[in-house]
This record gives sequence, structure tokens and C-alpha cells, in this order.
Amino acid sequence: MSKPKNAFYAQSGGVTAVLNASAGGVIETARQHTDRIGKLYAGRNGIIGALTEDLIDTSRESAAAIRKLRDTPAGAFGSCRYKLKSLAENRAEYQRLIDVFAAHNIGYFFYNGGGDSADTCRKVSQLARGMNYPMQAIHIPKTVDNDLAATDNCPGFGSVAKYIAISTREASFDVAAMASTSTKVFVLEVMGRHAGWIAASGAMAADERTQIPIIVLFPEIAFQRDKFIAEVRRKVQQHGYVSIVVSEGVRDQRGQFLSEQGLVDAFGHAQLGGAAPVIARMVKQDLNYKYHWAVADYLQRAARHIASKTDVEQAYAVGKAAVKMALAGDNAVMPAIVRVSNAPYRWKIGAAKLSRVANVEKKLPRNFISKDGFSITQRCRDYLAPLMRGEAYPRYRNGLPEYVKLKNVAVKKKLKENFTP
Amino acid sequence: MSKPKNAFYAQSGGVTAVLNASAGGVIETARQHTDRIGKLYAGRNGIIGALTEDLIDTSRESAAAIRKLRDTPAGAFGSCRYKLKSLAENRAEYQRLIDVFAAHNIGYFFYNGGGDSADTCRKVSQLARGMNYPMQAIHIPKTVDNDLAATDNCPGFGSVAKYIAISTREASFDVAAMASTSTKVFVLEVMGRHAGWIAASGAMAADERTQIPIIVLFPEIAFQRDKFIAEVRRKVQQHGYVSIVVSEGVRDQRGQFLSEQGLVDAFGHAQLGGAAPVIARMVKQDLNYKYHWAVADYLQRAARHIASKTDVEQAYAVGKAAVKMALAGDNAVMPAIVRVSNAPYRWKIGAAKLSRVANVEKKLPRNFISKDGFSITQRCRDYLAPLMRGEAYPRYRNGLPEYVKLKNVAVKKKLKENFTP
Repeated sequence: MSKPKNAFYAQSGGVTAVLNASAGGVIETARQHTDRIGKLYAGRNGIIGALTEDLIDTSRESAAAIRKLRDTPAGAFGSCRYKLKSLAENRAEYQRLIDVFAAHNIGYFFYNGGGDSADTCRKVSQLARGMNYPMQAIHIPKTVDNDLAATDNCPGFGSVAKYIAISTREASFDVAAMASTSTKVFVLEVMGRHAGWIAASGAMAADERTQIPIIVLFPEIAFQRDKFIAEVRRKVQQHGYVSIVVSEGVRDQRGQFLSEQGLVDAFGHAQLGGAAPVIARMVKQDLNYKYHWAVADYLQRAARHIASKTDVEQAYAVGKAAVKMALAGDNAVMPAIVRVSNAPYRWKIGAAKLSRVANVEKKLPRNFISKDGFSITQRCRDYLAPLMRGEAYPRYRNGLPEYVKLKNVAVKKKLKENFTP
Repeated sequence: MSKPKNAFYAQSGGVTAVLNASAGGVIETARQHTDRIGKLYAGRNGIIGALTEDLIDTSRESAAAIRKLRDTPAGAFGSCRYKLKSLAENRAEYQRLIDVFAAHNIGYFFYNGGGDSADTCRKVSQLARGMNYPMQAIHIPKTVDNDLAATDNCPGFGSVAKYIAISTREASFDVAAMASTSTKVFVLEVMGRHAGWIAASGAMAADERTQIPIIVLFPEIAFQRDKFIAEVRRKVQQHGYVSIVVSEGVRDQRGQFLSEQGLVDAFGHAQLGGAAPVIARMVKQDLNYKYHWAVADYLQRAARHIASKTDVEQAYAVGKAAVKMALAGDNAVMPAIVRVSNAPYRWKIGAAKLSRVANVEKKLPRNFISKDGFSITQRCRDYLAPLMRGEAYPRYRNGLPEYVKLKNVAVKKKLKENFTP
């Protein structure tokens, strides 16, 4: 019997609270099929690790360490922001990938990322076929932005949604308590430069019991200062306070990012100050309400301590399914999450062709946004609710979550040539 | 037998994740002693509720609702930022308090706040004595800043410390994964304008296992740009990345707040942009490292979802002890937390005279800060560790914590005169 092919796994783009859960799904499933899959190598810092032949031997990690990946945020092998050019533009890069894969007997390529990496994955698959190199390329979905096509939702998003909803609820309780003499307006800036899925989740902080007044500013809706200010005034007059959840990607009617407006440093250079302080300043100028603002930034996508259980399970499931698909002979596909029913929430894993996923951006549908453009519809609530459900607490030691740091032992290089990406 | 005296309870200043746990301790304990304490009234929006005779009848809340206070952040009765002037300056205000108390047969005054409210509590006690009005005034400690004297630590602080340490750890895992091609520096701005206790807790994110490189910027240490930049460069060269925890209260050597430096809007008006973006900009200008920054703001002090169990227990205990002290005949005192031992951590409740607490600010001792001024010492770690220990998760419903909103039924007014504070 011939030696089984090895596999390569890499993490791509911005990391999430559950990206490592997908890695755990891949590694644990591969370990159950050593007759078909030999070693599983991970790219150190993503695809750059493949290009530079900097591979990590995951077989050197204990089962206990791999199990902890499920509870550990970010990217255990390192990720990168590195988009391969088109085949026509930089065929050498793809050729190098195949050379590295061939040198290490790699026949499975698992690429864990967003829309760009789905595209890369597809190109690698095409090139391998063109070169008669036997390779199965499977893309594993990941993105906090929830903007991938052909899957009901993206692993990574549910946990951010949960974090933002909880944080907005908590901060709103705070403002409500302070509003009589102090802060009346709280502004929280969230991620999602092009799609408003994360911003929408802020509106989930309110329900019939809490009755929290919330204004959401979506990247899909052009910002109009007068309309916004009128809504802030109305909410404060009615409730005494208001919470504003603003996407980092909100633009005005000319298409300019709010975060790029107006601030200059002592030398007159324009400064990217964040959308939250810009919104807060407008509220102060136009209404003279006392405000506070927060920018969640990495805190929201790394918050494994309050990850959604649904999200953790789905992230693991797509990793596991990717290996199963590879074993079933699939190529240029992605395990997708299929919503079977809403109440009770049921989901299963389907398969999506990469041609349907690559470079497509799924924005928040207009019917998920309320008519006035400042909130979400019941339809959106029904979609979001199950994705944030369940808690999957990590283990704690001395008051802090125990996150694993892998050994990340390098595989010996076999190629003579170096490559600088 | 004469009718037992009623009690008044008010929340003061910035709210915390566990302020309501203290309220729960007061109310549940008072309810066990109805022979001695009649009704417990809460001030709507703090002391302003007493001045305006806007009292809340807590007896209208169910035992289940009161039990949930322990799990609910912020201030369930509303708080306020309102400092009573000195007796000489505004005796009428104190007179009004006594009038309201007398009208409602109030003989116990429980004031839950920081240094300012300890001072108010003491003055109310003095004035009542001077007027021969029978009144026991007990201060209940609360502040995220941990700057109260005469207590080992302040309820509210442990939970913020835990939140900041966890968030710093999580974001650091994120930066570590991204650093090869993208973000190398993460900046987190935290509260604590005058004292560096919260900033110090950021350093707890690192331990021997995680080895996270962290720079802390304390309000107690004058900021020096060149020294700071050299430290950032050193850490990035050694580890590939660095996390910076900056107190909102950091000042330069001239005493100017970093957050007040340099930014002007389109009209040339100076803007308070936060310390984090100022630090991030310096890193960009001097080292050209890619950065991300976050401002936690209210998120940190409202984060009941990840409150410290120690903190929740201590907050409840000081509320309970305040009632016990009142029943024991004490006046002008505060239940204080006394550390009995570090390992294992043991604490008890002691009593502190308000004269020792009022208007005293406890800063981070110099021997809690490392020699270079950028980190904490083992002594500081030993102090902080037990305060963040234990998780006290709230109940969840549909993926979100179930926080209670009380009915807050108003007590019928008895005085003819209105009072405008």
C-alpha cells in the first residue's frame, strides 16, 4: 500500500473566537483516519507558511492540547492578510505552492478563511488539476462579518453577535442608571466595514423585558445627520437615554466613511479616529447631551470567554466536515451551514461549490433593516437569535481563561530554493 | 411598641457590575429584621431622590426580583453624579434631607458609593446629631477605581480587573496571530483617571504560560514618549507584537492628559479623543507598526457577564454588613474588606470610621509598579489575583443574560414643598 497523502491546513485573514475550533475539527478528524491522511501540517502564519515552506507538524501536539483549541480564541498557527494574485499575474506563487505541497507529499489543502481565501482555494484547485497534481482543495468558512455567500451563516459571527448584544445590554443598563444627571447617550463602535450583520446584533440587546432604546447605524444605510439627530432626541425624550451601535463602515451620502471625517492632528494630517467619537461629537454639538463612547475592536472578535455555543459547535462541525469531504473525494467545495428550521433551530452541514462563494459579499438584506433605517425587523431577529444561543465557557485558572499555546514545531524544509512572498 | 424606623438606601456615582449585589445584600438583610427596620426606601437616581422626595418602595418588589439584583449590573434604582456642598455652603440641602427622612420616619441612611459619598454620609450623620434627629448613617463602599482608603479593596473593582485582564489576554492572542503581516501593536484604553489599579490589572493577562508582552501606562507615572517608544520597539523585536494597556488618566511630564493632546475638529476645536488613539498614532509615527486600538469605557464596568465571584460575594457582604452594623447601633461607619491572608485568600468584614474614608484617594503604591514603570511587581500580582478569582455567571435566556428591571414604584409624597437640587 502506498503511503497516505499528507494534508495542509492554514488560517487566513482576521481571526475569530472560534477559528481554532475549526482547526480542532480538522485535526481531530484527520487523526481518526491515519490510513487515508498521513501528517497534518499547518501553515505558520497562514498561506505564507506554505509559500516559505514554514510548515508546522501538528502531530507533535498532544490530544489534550488539540482538544483545548476548541476553547481558545484567535489563530493558534498564526494567520495572515495575504491575498494571492490572479494566476495570470503571479503564476510563480501558485507554482511554488504546488512545489511545496509535492515536496511534502501533500494531497489535501484545507483553507480556513473568508471570501478571498475561498477564491485562492479555488485557484489552487484549478492549477493543480491543470498540472495533473493530485490535490483536493476544501475551503472552511470563517468570518466575523458573516458576509460569505452559500452558507446560512459564518462561523465566528455568532460569537461576535453575542458579545455585541451582551455588551450593548450591559452598557445600556449603565447609561440608564446614570442618565438623570450624567451620561444620556452611549455609543458603541462595532466591526463590519461593508456588511451590517454585527451592527444588527447590537439591536438584540433590547427585548420586551428590557425595553432598551437603541439606534443602529448600518453601513448599508447612508448616514444623514439631521435624521439621526432627530431620532436621538426622540429616544432621549421618551426613555431618558439611548444607546447607539455604529458600524465602523458607516458612510455619509457622498460615500465618505464617518470615521475619516474632520479630525486632524497637530500637523494638520487627517486622522482616522473611529466612527464612535465622530457620532458622539455630533450628539454633543447638536443636542448637548453628555455622552460616553466605546470602540470594541479586537475585543469583540477575540471574546472566547462569552462565545456562542452554537457558533463553537458549527465552527468545529465545518472543520470536521471538511475532512470528511476530502475523504469522500470532493474538491473545490466548502462545507456550508444550512438552516433546517428556526423554531426549534436546526441546522446541518451542506456542500457549496467554491465558484458560488469566491469573492461574493453577502450584505444585510433591506428587509432585515427597519423602515426608518435605525433598527432591525422581526425577520432579522429570527435569523440572529439562534446563532448567539448557548454559552460555551472555557476553563478558568486563577480567574483567567486557560487558553492553549501550541508548541508549533517546524517541519524540516526539503526545498533548496527560498521564496519571498 | 413603637413602629420600627424605616430605612433609606441610595446608589451614588458611577455604577458597577456588582453595585446591585450590595443593594441585594441591604434589602434581603433588612427584610429579615422587620421588627427593627420597617420599609426600605431607595432614592430614585441616588441622593437626588431623597432631595426631591422621590422615594422607591422596595417592599413592592418580589423576593425573586431582589434575588436577581445579585446578577444584574449597573444601578437598579438609578444613580447620580451629585456632590452635596459643605454644610456651610448649602445647609438647606442637608436640612431638606432631614425633612424628607423625618416625613417618612427614616432612621437608617445607607449610602452606597465612593469617596465623595462617604463624605456626604458623614455630614448627614453630623447634621442629624446636631439637630437631635435620630439617624444612623452607614456608608457602603463601591468604586471600580479601587481608590477608597480603609478597605483592602472596593467592591466593583475585582470585576473590572477580571474583565480587563481577560480582554487583554484575548486581544493579545488575536494580535499574536496577525502580527506577521498585519497588526503588531494593540492598544486598550481603560478607566481609572487618578489611580492605576485598573491599568495594573491588564498586566495580569500575561503569565508564565502565555508569555504575553504587555506595556502598562499608569496615571501614576509621567509619560515619556521616547522611553515608551523604545520599549514598544524592544517588545515587538523580541515577541513580534505587543499589547499596551493605557489608563485614561495618563499625563505627560507637564501634567497634561494624553487624551487632550493634539486633535482638533474641522473648526479647529480641541477634541477629547481618548488616550488609546493618541498612543496608537505615536506608534505609527515613530515606528510605522500597524496598530489596532480599543476603548472599553462602560463595557468594562458593566460587564456582569464575566464578573468576579469574589467581587460579587464581597459586594453582597458589605451590603449585608451595613444593615447588621445599623442594627448594632453603629453610626458614621463603613463596612470594610479586610484581607486576612493571601494564600489561601481569606477576607472578613471590618468597620472603618468615615473620617478615615471621606475624600481620601488611594493610589497604586510605587512598589506595585515595576522599576521601569511599564509593568507590575509580584507584590501587585499577589494583591490582584484573588480579587478576580471565580466566575459568577448570570442566567441566560435566548443567548443573553437575564438582568432584572425592577418596578420601582414611587412612595407617596408627604411634604408640601418641592425642592430643586
